[in-house]
Formats: sequence, C-alpha cells, structure tokens
Amino acid sequence: MSPTDSVYAGLEARFARLGALGEAARVLHWDSAVNMPSGGAAARAEQLAALKLVRRDMLAEDGMAGRLDEAAAEVAGDPWRAANLREMRRIWRRETAVDADLLVARTRAESACEMAWRRARAENDFLVVRSRLEELVDLVRRTGEAMAAVLGGSVYEALMDAFEPGATTAGVDELFDDLAGFLPGFLERALDARRDPPVPAAPAEGYPVEAQRALCVGLMKRLGFDFDRGRLDTSLHPFCGGVPDDIRITTRYDPGDFSQALMGVLHETGHALYEAGLPTRWRRQPVGRARGMAMHESQSLLIEMQVCRSREFAAYLAPLIRDAFSGAGAGWDAEALGRHCLRIRRSLVRVDSDEVTYPSHVLLRYRLERAMIAGDLRAADLPGAWSDGLDDLLGIRPETDREGCLQDIHWYDGAWGYFPTYTMGAAAAAQLYAAARSEIAGLPEAVAEGAFAPLVDWLRDSVHSKGSLFPSTDAALEAATGERLSAAPFKAHLARRYLPC
Amino acid sequence: MSPTDSVYAGLEARFARLGALGEAARVLHWDSAVNMPSGGAAARAEQLAALKLVRRDMLAEDGMAGRLDEAAAEVAGDPWRAANLREMRRIWRRETAVDADLLVARTRAESACEMAWRRARAENDFLVVRSRLEELVDLVRRTGEAMAAVLGGSVYEALMDAFEPGATTAGVDELFDDLAGFLPGFLERALDARRDPPVPAAPAEGYPVEAQRALCVGLMKRLGFDFDRGRLDTSLHPFCGGVPDDIRITTRYDPGDFSQALMGVLHETGHALYEAGLPTRWRRQPVGRARGMAMHESQSLLIEMQVCRSREFAAYLAPLIRDAFSGAGAGWDAEALGRHCLRIRRSLVRVDSDEVTYPSHVLLRYRLERAMIAGDLRAADLPGAWSDGLDDLLGIRPETDREGCLQDIHWYDGAWGYFPTYTMGAAAAAQLYAAARSEIAGLPEAVAEGAFAPLVDWLRDSVHSKGSLFPSTDAALEAATGERLSAAPFKAHLARRYLPC
Repeated sequence: MSPTDSVYAGLEARFARLGALGEAARVLHWDSAVNMPSGGAAARAEQLAALKLVRRDMLAEDGMAGRLDEAAAEVAGDPWRAANLREMRRIWRRETAVDADLLVARTRAESACEMAWRRARAENDFLVVRSRLEELVDLVRRTGEAMAAVLGGSVYEALMDAFEPGATTAGVDELFDDLAGFLPGFLERALDARRDPPVPAAPAEGYPVEAQRALCVGLMKRLGFDFDRGRLDTSLHPFCGGVPDDIRITTRYDPGDFSQALMGVLHETGHALYEAGLPTRWRRQPVGRARGMAMHESQSLLIEMQVCRSREFAAYLAPLIRDAFSGAGAGWDAEALGRHCLRIRRSLVRVDSDEVTYPSHVLLRYRLERAMIAGDLRAADLPGAWSDGLDDLLGIRPETDREGCLQDIHWYDGAWGYFPTYTMGAAAAAQLYAAARSEIAGLPEAVAEGAFAPLVDWLRDSVHSKGSLFPSTDAALEAATGERLSAAPFKAHLARRYLPC
Repeated sequence: MSPTDSVYAGLEARFARLGALGEAARVLHWDSAVNMPSGGAAARAEQLAALKLVRRDMLAEDGMAGRLDEAAAEVAGDPWRAANLREMRRIWRRETAVDADLLVARTRAESACEMAWRRARAENDFLVVRSRLEELVDLVRRTGEAMAAVLGGSVYEALMDAFEPGATTAGVDELFDDLAGFLPGFLERALDARRDPPVPAAPAEGYPVEAQRALCVGLMKRLGFDFDRGRLDTSLHPFCGGVPDDIRITTRYDPGDFSQALMGVLHETGHALYEAGLPTRWRRQPVGRARGMAMHESQSLLIEMQVCRSREFAAYLAPLIRDAFSGAGAGWDAEALGRHCLRIRRSLVRVDSDEVTYPSHVLLRYRLERAMIAGDLRAADLPGAWSDGLDDLLGIRPETDREGCLQDIHWYDGAWGYFPTYTMGAAAAAQLYAAARSEIAGLPEAVAEGAFAPLVDWLRDSVHSKGSLFPSTDAALEAATGERLSAAPFKAHLARRYLPC
C-alpha cells in the first residue's frame, strides 16, 4: 500500500479540506471585526453558519468512525501521524456529538444574542439581552449535554473541551483554589508596597496615533513578526486573527496613553509568534494547530506580562518612547515606564485590570458560568450575582451593567467554558518563562538590550513547533518545563515583581 | 404539503447554503486583493479551492437530479420560484459536468499560472509563464469539453456560459461583426473631428490622494451608494467585490490625474448599485443574483460612460473639482473636464483605452481565446498573434509583452470566455440609457444638476430588482427596453458624442 492511498492519507486529505474551511472562517471573523459595515452582519452570519454546517456534515459522513479505527494501525510508531489521528478523532467525537438541528439552533441563537448584546451594552440595559441570553444558555447546555454523553465528564467540561481539550473542573479548581487562597492577601500587601509618584503627563494633543502605530510595528518586527505574513490593523476589541501564514493583529489607540495599544500589540504578538511557529509540515491538519487556548494565552502573556512589562524591557523601551514621541516622550525614563506598566488596582473591568487582579475577574466568570450551565443561576439573576461575586472577590461593585455583566462579549456570542483558559495561560506563562530563564543564560540582560531571538527561538523549539503533538497542555508543559501546570511559578513571579525585596 | 417541507423548499435551503459559501469566497477574493500579505497566498488558494470543492460535492450529491425534476410541478405558476428552479438546474448541470479530479487540476493550474503570470509580468518575460499557460489552456479546454457534452453547443460556448448563461458565438459574432465593420472608419472620423486644446496641468505636488478619495466618496453617496452596506478601498486592480449588503469597491489613485480614480470609482459604483438593488427576498438564491456579466458591465458602463463622461455630468462635476482641489482645481471648467474625459486614442493597453477603441481590444482577445481553445493557436505563438491582431484592428503593435499579451490577468487566472461580456455590456449600456432617456423626462438636465435618483430608481425597477428572473440577457433587455441586445444604440451614442453635429 502506498502512503497516498492509505486510509490515513484519505483522512489527511479530508481534514486538510476541513482545515482550509476553518481558515476561511477565521479570515471572515477578522474581516467582521475590522472591515465589515454594519449592514453586512446578517449576510456574514449566514456565511459563517454555512461553513460550520458544512464542517459538521463532512465530519458526520458515513464511515468516518471506521476509517479512524482502521488508520490506527497505519500510523503506529509515527508520533506525528499518530498524534494527528488522535486529534482527528477528538474533533470528530466532539463535533458529531451535536445533531445538525441543535447546531443550527445554537448558531442562530448566538448571532441573535450577540446582536442584542451590542444594543444592550450601548443602551446600558441588561433587559435588552436577557431573554436572548436565557435562550442561548439553554441551547449551550443542550449542546454540552450532547457532547458530555459522548466525551464523558460533566456538561461544563464538555464545553471547556472545545477550547482546552481534556480540561477538567478538578484541574481548574485546583489552580483557582490555590490562587483564591493567595491573591486577596497578596493584593493587600502589593498595594501597600507600591509607590506611585506621578508619571509624565500626556501632551495636550495626545500621543499621535501614527507615531504609536510606528512604534508598535517596530517592536513587532523586533520580536520577529513577519509583515510578509501578517498585518496590524485597528478594531474596537484587539485580537489576533487570521491564519499561520497570514496573521492579523488588531489594536486600538488611546491618544492619552500609548501603553494601551503598545502592550496590547505586544500581547497579540505573543499569540502571533505561536501561530507563525506552528509546524509548517502540518498546516491545516489538526496536529498542526495550537495545543489549546491556555497554551495560546500563555504565549501572549509570556511576551506581554513576563517580558514586556518587566523592568529590563522598560530599560530597552524608554529611548524608543523618547524617539517615537520626540518632545512629548522626553519625560519617560525606564523607571517611570516600569511603574506605569506595573500599576495595580481594583478595577471593575477585566480588560483594564492587571496581572494581580485579573485572575479574580476570571474566577468570577468561571463561577457564574458554571452555575448558569448547571441551571443554578438564571440569566435574570446574573446582574445581582455578578455584583455580589465581584464584591466578594475584589471588594468593589459595578454601578451599571455595562461595567458589570455586559462588559464581555464571550457569553453573548457563545463562548462558554473559555474564561478559565486566561488564568491557566497566565500560570503557564510564568512557568515557561521561569524555564526559559533557567535555560537561556543572561536572558534578562538580553531583553534589556532588545535581543529577543534567544527567547523566541526557545519558545519555537519548546512550544510553537510542537503544535498539538502532545495530548494535553499538561503534557506539553511537562515536555517544555519538566512540570505539569501549577500556580507556583506565577505566585513566585508576582511576589518578585510586586513585593519589596 | 406545507411550503416548508416541499421538495422545492429543500432545494432552496440547499442553495441558500451554496449561496452563503459563494459569498464567503467573494469576501475572501476581495481580501486577497486588498489586504492579504504575499505570504498568505498559498493558504488562501487552499481556502478557495476547498470552498469550490465543497460546492461541487453539494451539487453532485445523489438525488439532486430527481429533486430538480420533482420540484417543477410545485413551482408552476409562480414566476420567481420557477425562475429560481430554472437557475438551480442551470448551475447544477454546468457545475456537475466536470468531475472532481479535473476541477481540482484546473483550480491548481489556475493558482500556479496566476503566480507565474505575476512574475512574468514583473520581469516582462512571457517565457516565465508560457508552459503554465499551455497546461492551463489544456485543462480549461477539457472542462469546456465536459460542460459542452452536457449543455450542448461548442466548447467555447460552454466556457462563456459560466459568465453569460446561454451566450452563443453566433450572437457574439453578430455584435462584433457589426462593430468591426463600423469602428475603424468611425475612429478615423472621430480622431479627425477632435479638438484637443490643453487641459489644466496637474499641480507639481499632484492632486492629494485624500482629496481624491473624499471626492469619490461624495459622488458615490450622491449616486446612492450606502456606506452602511459597503466600503471604498485601495487595490492595484480596481474592482467591485463583496456581497449585496456588504459591497467592496476598490480603486487606485494617480496623483497626476484625478480622473483615473474618479471615473474608475463611478464605474464600480454602477456595479455596486446593481448588487445593492438585487431583490432582497432572494438573497443567496440563484434567481437573486445578477443576470450575467454582460448585464453587470452594462450597469457600470451606463454610470461611467453614458452618464459620468457626458457633457452634462461635466457641468455638475466642474465646481466639485474646484472645491475638492481648491487652487489646483481652479482651471477645470465643464468644457475642459468634458474634453479630458472623452479623449480617444489608439492605446496598447485595454484598461487605458476609451469607449471607441475598447471594443477592438475585446475583439482581439475574443479571437485569440477562441483560437486557443479550439487548438488553432498555441500558447507559444500568442505574443506574435497578439501583435499581428492588434495591428490589424488598431494599427499599433506592442513593443513588449507586458504591454501585449501579459497585460490582463484574465486568462492566467482561468477566466476564459469572459472578455466578450465587456462589449456586450457597452452595447447594453447604450441601449438601456437610450430607453431611460425616453422614459424619464428631462434626464440630461437632472444629471447636470446631480439629481441621479430618477435614473437609479428606473434602473432598480427595470434591471436591478429583476435579478435573474428572466432567462437571458436578451430577455432582460427586452423587458427593460423592448429590444434584444443590438449594436445600434451604441453606434448612435458614439456618433452623437464624437462626431461634429
């Protein structure tokens, strides 16, 4: 039997097409955020729904189960092909567990709920979206039930599985319990320890957007972002989209504070380097994709939080800021920059928060979404539960739902079981950066000189180029760092950074 | 039987999905031209190929033929549903005529040939693309043969059918023979009659691109383009892409001559108004699409050539030019503008030519592509045949292939049988505008005042809102103007515009 007419080769061809359709959807998602005029939303929803249904039909076609079984013997002893087959099976099991009618209903409910959320947020009125959210939660629960019946585990775990394959609530709880015991006391101590002398005031006319953009582009290049294989654009909600050879980063510019766009772009560049470094041999195959959203977030947070908010990076950045904004940047020295980039405060809004308080925002959402999926919290009671929960975790309460349960798009466009990956990613970032520091001599000194290649090469070798070769984030982390995911390096990092020596 | 579980309703659902996938491909095509970095080309080719193959598989699935037959009785007496079923059958016959392997081979050959063409054109060396072109012509011929076996008619007609359903070489020949007998003598007389006193020189710093763009946007709005349902961007080759509720016009700006972008945008706005005016009830259904490429080109040429290069439009435009470019625009009065927009000359390049010489450029390509498809002209002999043919038609010869057979992308990316629709469109534009003038009292005076609503409303009623209700361009023209497509109104238009009264 030649390799090209094996059962496995047939599956690869099938999944190549699925992968290409998935890529098409990713480009369309990017376009929706960056270019699409408002009138195009309904047509775009139809386009994306059609892609989703085609994907399901292709996975559900007769004989797939048998071929996945038959191919196993063909790939035995070949780690990449075996891993690819494992990932194919995983996708097939998860995505065929939900019948087409339920998938259509959930997809339509997501579009309707997201549109209602946009109005609700603009009008600061949760009632505008409440019934849509109730309907969506019900459909999400039903898809979760259908998947759990096939995958085993709980309904919530089945939902998490779409973002972080194999994730368990036991594992997430272990991480969060550790952090929930540590962070409140740590936050008090860190706030007590801070010195916040004023930083240079922004110029009256603001930091020019073009100069901010040029600074971002320069740093992206310095980190190894290839503009022949990617772009930087503007959108309301910054993200990293596109596909590995055509990566689309977006940001937004605040004329009053260059650090918003800059740190956002550096964060997305971490995501982008991961995508760019995925194994080219396995483009559009399941094994060629990122290991999961926790690992993805670890790459963005490693670049942003571990590297670019460090005092050594501030030393590299300060002269660039002075150059970029000529007179207006003159007051920014490394000390002021470091202080500005390491502010901590109790904030109502997750995306405005810092690495110390961020896990509390995530924990709040994790608790609430588990309760909603379990049927223990109704959508109608969400605003109150949100306020109480935030008060419990951070001691603050939103005055309006716009700053409360309407602030994130995730639930309203159907991403349930996604939030925990932010904090898993933060912990993994600290763990990976600790390993990198121990393996790369003089890494902080290199960062202070803007020499990022040693780090990025290490990440490519240890993480990016592995794609989904390992069966889980824990296994991937163990290969890269010698340890499963743990909160310890993250806690040590926070202590080193925010407490007096 | 309820309407939603009829066989016809099932077909509508099926074609709605096909339509949505087709829309996804159109957005990706636009993105390729406007945004995609060079490194993304291979991934994009895979995405578009996957969409094409999914489409073919959906059309070719078992039972489609039977359902198309069964549905006929259900739609009898309902003109729109009956027309939709007719168009479904047309698409099904044409697209399932080619087997999947041949479709894949042609799709890959198109990508490879287009990439080779880009190099060949940059290096001005036909040899770079010659063997790729030979390979592609062979595959195009084989797909044409497969389609002709199902559709009847010649291989070339089967290729034309993809752009202009039901087009015959007899019909195209009739139009071209008429024009070929008329144009050479007409061109001589028109060149003799012209007065070309100098027009105002461009300012040393050029016409600012931002001011050009603002002028274009203002005129697009004036013509009824809705920026909540569309955009204007920049690309190397201007075109109108996107989908009816999200129309993407592109242009490019020449700082030395504002009329290039302006007339280009007005041309694309004609295409855009057609897309925007297609029947909303039939979005993503076959009957809801434009009647064909000839009718599409008639809408762009009606706006550009019939309306916006007229002397009455120049009267409306002149003060806008003076406002847009302040000092630099001061010399542009209506007379100079009219003269500038109605230059005629023997040009080597189709896209730089005018409405008098354009048909000769198209006729050259029509002759050559028919000969290549018939096997009477080999790719190796194309450059020579091009020179001889252009000499024969216009009395000029290109000095290089870049200005000769490498100038257009069409053949190299697989569009064979498309060129005739340009000139069919030019004739249809003259015919439709003559009908509009006879039905709308005071139309030229309205144009001189920038009042386009009466014309656009007439076009929407007579053409746009009909989608593909009529079975052919001839039938659609007959409904709108009382006559089948004919060269007579186009010839009368040229005589009125370019010969002394």
